[in-house]
Amino acid sequence: MGKNLTKRSEDYSKWYNELVIKANLAEMSGVRGCMVIKPYGFAIWEKIQAGLDKMFKETGHENAYFPLFIPKSYLSKEASHVEGFAKECAVVTHYRLKNSDDGKSIVVDEDARLEEELIVRPTSETIIWDTFRKWVQSYRDLPLLINQWANVVRWEMRTRLFLRTTEFLWQEGHTAHATRQEAVEEAELILNIYADFAEGHMAVPVIKGIKTESERFAGAEDTFCIEALMQDGKALQAGTSHFLGQNFAKAFDVKFATKEGKQEYVWATSWGVSTRLMGALIMTHSDDNGLVLPPKLAPIQVVIVPIYKGIEQLDAISKKIQPLLKELKSKDISVKFDQRDTHKPGFKFNEYELKGVPVRIAIGQRDLEQGTLEIARRDTLEKASIDMDKAVDHITELLAEIQESIYKKAESFRDQNIRSVDSYDEFKEVLEAHGGFIAAHWDGTAETEAQIKKETMATIRCIPLSGYEGKGSCMVSGKPSERRVLFAKAY
Amino acid sequence: MGKNLTKRSEDYSKWYNELVIKANLAEMSGVRGCMVIKPYGFAIWEKIQAGLDKMFKETGHENAYFPLFIPKSYLSKEASHVEGFAKECAVVTHYRLKNSDDGKSIVVDEDARLEEELIVRPTSETIIWDTFRKWVQSYRDLPLLINQWANVVRWEMRTRLFLRTTEFLWQEGHTAHATRQEAVEEAELILNIYADFAEGHMAVPVIKGIKTESERFAGAEDTFCIEALMQDGKALQAGTSHFLGQNFAKAFDVKFATKEGKQEYVWATSWGVSTRLMGALIMTHSDDNGLVLPPKLAPIQVVIVPIYKGIEQLDAISKKIQPLLKELKSKDISVKFDQRDTHKPGFKFNEYELKGVPVRIAIGQRDLEQGTLEIARRDTLEKASIDMDKAVDHITELLAEIQESIYKKAESFRDQNIRSVDSYDEFKEVLEAHGGFIAAHWDGTAETEAQIKKETMATIRCIPLSGYEGKGSCMVSGKPSERRVLFAKAY
Repeated sequence: MGKNLTKRSEDYSKWYNELVIKANLAEMSGVRGCMVIKPYGFAIWEKIQAGLDKMFKETGHENAYFPLFIPKSYLSKEASHVEGFAKECAVVTHYRLKNSDDGKSIVVDEDARLEEELIVRPTSETIIWDTFRKWVQSYRDLPLLINQWANVVRWEMRTRLFLRTTEFLWQEGHTAHATRQEAVEEAELILNIYADFAEGHMAVPVIKGIKTESERFAGAEDTFCIEALMQDGKALQAGTSHFLGQNFAKAFDVKFATKEGKQEYVWATSWGVSTRLMGALIMTHSDDNGLVLPPKLAPIQVVIVPIYKGIEQLDAISKKIQPLLKELKSKDISVKFDQRDTHKPGFKFNEYELKGVPVRIAIGQRDLEQGTLEIARRDTLEKASIDMDKAVDHITELLAEIQESIYKKAESFRDQNIRSVDSYDEFKEVLEAHGGFIAAHWDGTAETEAQIKKETMATIRCIPLSGYEGKGSCMVSGKPSERRVLFAKAY
Repeated sequence: MGKNLTKRSEDYSKWYNELVIKANLAEMSGVRGCMVIKPYGFAIWEKIQAGLDKMFKETGHENAYFPLFIPKSYLSKEASHVEGFAKECAVVTHYRLKNSDDGKSIVVDEDARLEEELIVRPTSETIIWDTFRKWVQSYRDLPLLINQWANVVRWEMRTRLFLRTTEFLWQEGHTAHATRQEAVEEAELILNIYADFAEGHMAVPVIKGIKTESERFAGAEDTFCIEALMQDGKALQAGTSHFLGQNFAKAFDVKFATKEGKQEYVWATSWGVSTRLMGALIMTHSDDNGLVLPPKLAPIQVVIVPIYKGIEQLDAISKKIQPLLKELKSKDISVKFDQRDTHKPGFKFNEYELKGVPVRIAIGQRDLEQGTLEIARRDTLEKASIDMDKAVDHITELLAEIQESIYKKAESFRDQNIRSVDSYDEFKEVLEAHGGFIAAHWDGTAETEAQIKKETMATIRCIPLSGYEGKGSCMVSGKPSERRVLFAKAY
């Protein structure tokens, strides 16, 4: 197709990197590990943001904004949190630069050293709970349902566009509740929102589950997660929702007066998804020709390419196409009429395939005469000729069909790649041969989990909330197991 | 009114700070100079963002995202830029923390020192122009019309909520063009968008002008600005749009091939508005009873307060009011029915006055019987009884009227506070007695400008784009002046 894209079967990882660059989604910047999200990639992220933001607000959450910087001492307040988070992060130590003595460059002004270092937030529990202390006095102040869209920094040694970058964009929800039950229900509510969004908007099927203790968020009592499967058989954690118990309330002394006038610590959750979702979106659907985007998140849903010789033919096509453009726009379908005369139709076809535009329409001289259009869908590459006066209905239906079809395809792939095994040997064989999720019995100990990870690189992605029930014995230790859990190699 | 708000006439600055806190807009955080934007304040900021973002996109701009960190060496590349910006900023020197030797706290790991320090962006020209070099090869790649919504950090010694904080939120536009003229037109286009938004959405009248050389953005050839007047007679710069010439293109070696095949440096603009607009919004309209918000930016446009005794009366009101709620929502009017039984109507009236909800409706037993509502407008505090079946039309009209009315009021105040003077003595008298804008002749030199600033604290806010024409002689030096310029003390 002339896109010079490495094939997935040749080198999946190389295919991914090339695709992100060539489709103009993102690129690495001059700052180690930090990416630039380019306009086309950012337009997809904006649609992800808008979709999630609406769902958060419909369930009573409000947005707010908290400081980028966290005083170093805050991180130490919740013991397990600091263990998990505080180490690899960007540290601000000074607040001024000055001219060097030779006047040729600028240097850090050693006189402007901060008394206490500031950490660029890797996540905001500590600064937010320090604030919640001022916001919560009585049961009337609860629940607090807060979300923040923000950038965060975790100093990563090995980075990949969208999947693992030193700085990334995300939303982080932080809520406070009067009772344990209400907090657990909140964590579950958000898990369901994440799953509904992944499946309904991104067309990415996910498995809902709970993390094991060793994979849990630092400071959480329970971490709920959604796990997706990429085409190379590796799992990707697409979102997490944490029940934090009273850990942060105790660390930051956040109490409330109950209706009965008693002082109690509040219960908490936190939850987040990030620009990592972009990676999941790209890897779930795209093919050797480029991106495949679900219509609900595609910045351009329909592109119209005129096929013409000379300005007169272009004018005729342009005139003919105006009512269609207008009607599509009135239905909130995002459509682009590409009348650039600097590029040939073939070039444009390639470009929109690479960029994953769900529906491509071509219109030439014969179409003008016959009142037809050529319509091509990106996911299957199928083409058809349709009547121009039925175009709007056809396009509307086709967009819905593509949305559903790519979900079904991904679901079918995912389902075919969940395999139950009963012995450790079989586990290793299946992992080596197929990857995918493996449902196996595990004795519930961190030791066995660590041994499997060390020997096979596979981790327990989650204890699924439903399915794979039934007791058995651990494939490694032979000890009793309450239910199967899902293993996979993961991004 | 029981709000315990300091009167503007007593202490304007104290009134502002109290209002921001009591109306739940923002508060200072535990991090020096950094604010927390609370949900009610953030909801207003989201409306500002949405309004501007739409205007940017309608004029062909696209959003993208660039790194938070800027390598120190980038800042030195544009000589005047580094002079103006690089000094007071947050410097990241290390990328890891570790446990202290006694295990009781965490300390900076001195082994994890960065080879080159990173600056937390105070503005992004340098990192963006380093990226643009890769994006621009030929005239076909131009113009590049990029915007970014982001947080930035400037190490401020004296901070005030929204007006001057160490970290703030903003948008920064960065564009690249093939010709000088196109870049100048872009800077002017954005100036007009800013002015239209300030006046049309925020109901804040502004004066469009050009900054003098000493007030210009570091690295710009021309800085266009909009200037607003606060109720205490001080000016507030509400937005700036810079024509950058070829300064950044030369510093970062960004050239393009023209149609004729020549290599030329591109022309640039940058432009931004920030959470400072929140300060302008609050200070322009609000009064001793609290916030006054323009309907277009009010998170809650209409609040309905039931006045009742017992659950039966509340139920009757609630039932009666449902069609009105539904119809208002269908017209995209944001309405809240406050049926909290924990607070009395008087408390609620106070609260919504403090929060600046434009229209308040009260409905009691007699209204139920007579089919009426009591409607109160926040800006004038006027009340009226209206027929319930005409309520939707009445409310729709009233919201439009309030939007216009508070603009007119602010405009009238502003116009009354622009005074022309012809001598330096008169200048000082007027400045002392009234503040406001003073239109005066100036000889065009930085020396005179500096002298006036030193002696009176007033600065040249702008050389207005229109009005105040006609030659004269400088009020200080007596030298010839081409036109009057506008002075004021400023935030």
